[in-house]
Amino acid sequence: MFIFNNQRIILFKKNFLRLNLDAFLVSNPNNIFYLVGFEGLSEKERESWLLVTKNKVYFFTDKRYFSYSKKFSNGKIIIISPKNTLIKNLKQIIDKEQIRICGVEADDLKINEFNALKIKINSVRFQSIEKLIINQRSIKEKEEIKKIKKACLLTEKCLNEIIKLIKKGITEKEIAFKIEFFLKEKNFELAFPPIIAFDENSSLPHYNTKGGNNKKLKNNGIILIDFGVKFENYCSDITRVFFLEKPDTQIIKIYQKLLEAQNETINFCQTDKLAKVVDLFCRENLKRKLLNFNSYFYSHATGHGIGLEIHENPKISINSEERINNNQIFTIEPGIYIPKKYGLRIEDTILIEDSKPKRLTKFSKEIIIL
Amino acid sequence: MFIFNNQRIILFKKNFLRLNLDAFLVSNPNNIFYLVGFEGLSEKERESWLLVTKNKVYFFTDKRYFSYSKKFSNGKIIIISPKNTLIKNLKQIIDKEQIRICGVEADDLKINEFNALKIKINSVRFQSIEKLIINQRSIKEKEEIKKIKKACLLTEKCLNEIIKLIKKGITEKEIAFKIEFFLKEKNFELAFPPIIAFDENSSLPHYNTKGGNNKKLKNNGIILIDFGVKFENYCSDITRVFFLEKPDTQIIKIYQKLLEAQNETINFCQTDKLAKVVDLFCRENLKRKLLNFNSYFYSHATGHGIGLEIHENPKISINSEERINNNQIFTIEPGIYIPKKYGLRIEDTILIEDSKPKRLTKFSKEIIIL
Repeated sequence: MFIFNNQRIILFKKNFLRLNLDAFLVSNPNNIFYLVGFEGLSEKERESWLLVTKNKVYFFTDKRYFSYSKKFSNGKIIIISPKNTLIKNLKQIIDKEQIRICGVEADDLKINEFNALKIKINSVRFQSIEKLIINQRSIKEKEEIKKIKKACLLTEKCLNEIIKLIKKGITEKEIAFKIEFFLKEKNFELAFPPIIAFDENSSLPHYNTKGGNNKKLKNNGIILIDFGVKFENYCSDITRVFFLEKPDTQIIKIYQKLLEAQNETINFCQTDKLAKVVDLFCRENLKRKLLNFNSYFYSHATGHGIGLEIHENPKISINSEERINNNQIFTIEPGIYIPKKYGLRIEDTILIEDSKPKRLTKFSKEIIIL
Repeated sequence: MFIFNNQRIILFKKNFLRLNLDAFLVSNPNNIFYLVGFEGLSEKERESWLLVTKNKVYFFTDKRYFSYSKKFSNGKIIIISPKNTLIKNLKQIIDKEQIRICGVEADDLKINEFNALKIKINSVRFQSIEKLIINQRSIKEKEEIKKIKKACLLTEKCLNEIIKLIKKGITEKEIAFKIEFFLKEKNFELAFPPIIAFDENSSLPHYNTKGGNNKKLKNNGIILIDFGVKFENYCSDITRVFFLEKPDTQIIKIYQKLLEAQNETINFCQTDKLAKVVDLFCRENLKRKLLNFNSYFYSHATGHGIGLEIHENPKISINSEERINNNQIFTIEPGIYIPKKYGLRIEDTILIEDSKPKRLTKFSKEIIIL
């Protein structure tokens, strides 16, 4: 489970040494999992910490997970407790290894945690750094790409089975339940709570199916399904729209134009392009195709990276300063939302391979009448 | 869904005005849900913010959740976007309402979020405050107590059904799946991923069933089950140990003493006692009863508050400075963990009512042979 001296740690160390840091205290549980493989129960509580120094890797957790401290040639698992606190251990290591500047995660550590470190340990300067591991994680390794590909396959297999069960009178919650149990029965997990939205509910991009009004499906209904699966901790993400009978001409027209824009945006994704240029391309493209529906265009990002988490870097949004890189995996998911009527969104998961976009999602994008 | 001028907001306002704050910016999604009833999809991302001022309540989210901004007599739902940012809106409100000091949540806001607020809005002083809403939430209202009682009942109903299915050869993951399925089929949610641990796996208090070795149950096995249910967003928590045949004398002896200590600790819980005194009472009590097993005593807290989250205040631990209060609900859950052999833990959910402890968990604590 623990691999202390792996390629990820080596690259991370190189990155923080370049910033003139002597060490880095990692707190984000997903980053800790990424670097050393520890998977705690809760993402919301601090169940572990990781200190990477020039020479060693120290992993801290409490007795609920490991019985004893363990030494490795290049690191140590240290069991912390109310008597043997994180602070006490950090002080000793900082002294012993003569650490002067220690990085902490600006996008993870909370104000009171940062203050406690600064107040209790004054022999070191804590410097908050943004996105260091997050950016490293945005470039996927071969093994990670394989896992996301498998997650995409599994998602489509699930979707193919689920749509067979969709009939007039079924509720949104019933479909969400069927997806979850298709997966869990096989020991897989959801990447996030599925969004199943009928008719006017689909006009809210983040419609909350669990808390929703649990509409029954009508014959002329629109069915939006947005869900993802985890395969060995790696996520996939897909959105498709289905119908029970042929939709009206306006819906068909909007759908076709949205699909064209989505496909053209996927093809536009190439290495070195700014993510925000991709975002803008998609919006401008839609504007040309569907000028009259301008006020209904999506306000969310055009896409987001995926990996251990469902929302990672790169963010394909107007606020993003990132450039597209090889071995990045992200979604492209424009949408049109007509309030109180309906919403349409088409979402694929894309890999950048040899500078070019490759669709990992193979599921048909034709209008599907079930 | 939204109740802007409710009792919770009124009490919260009273609490922060007493600290000489003019306003408070709430970021923790559970606190936002508690105060105004908004339930987003993700606890990990900032999907909403709440600003409470002397006169009004402003709720911010983006177009994924609501189509349009809405005005109420005492507040406003404001839709933020890349053009109409949170910062821009905050600036306007701060100017208009002449806010000089604005509280933020020290135990929720991240370093980079705090820095961004301070840098981008310099007409106000942001002051980080710990635990203000968390402490308010620790005293439960009648309606909240009712919901937790129902969650406890549901948990026991589920446990009663599940133990009928436990037989030689079943795996930990199968039991966890059956619990989850039992609940979700009825449209309820788990409070946290169930911990199902057989034999030596039970010696780790936070054994990870999902990532575990998926042992098959033997005839002479120990079965530890720790799980909880959400009823209308409120959690319950229970741990019990089961056997397929009569366990050996040492296990029976340890279990009986642990149970005595647990019962005596529950009875010891009364208003105005310091939580850390309760924690110490339980440990000292166990020491008297099981001196030889001293090194195997639990290192985790004796208990934790429950409510909208599975771990809330009061924390019944050595580090806690809180006093027990009426209408608090928390667990009492001492354990004995013998590494590589087995662990025993008994956990009940307790309500403090009329200054006295009341067990909300009714499930038998006798040694149960299935």
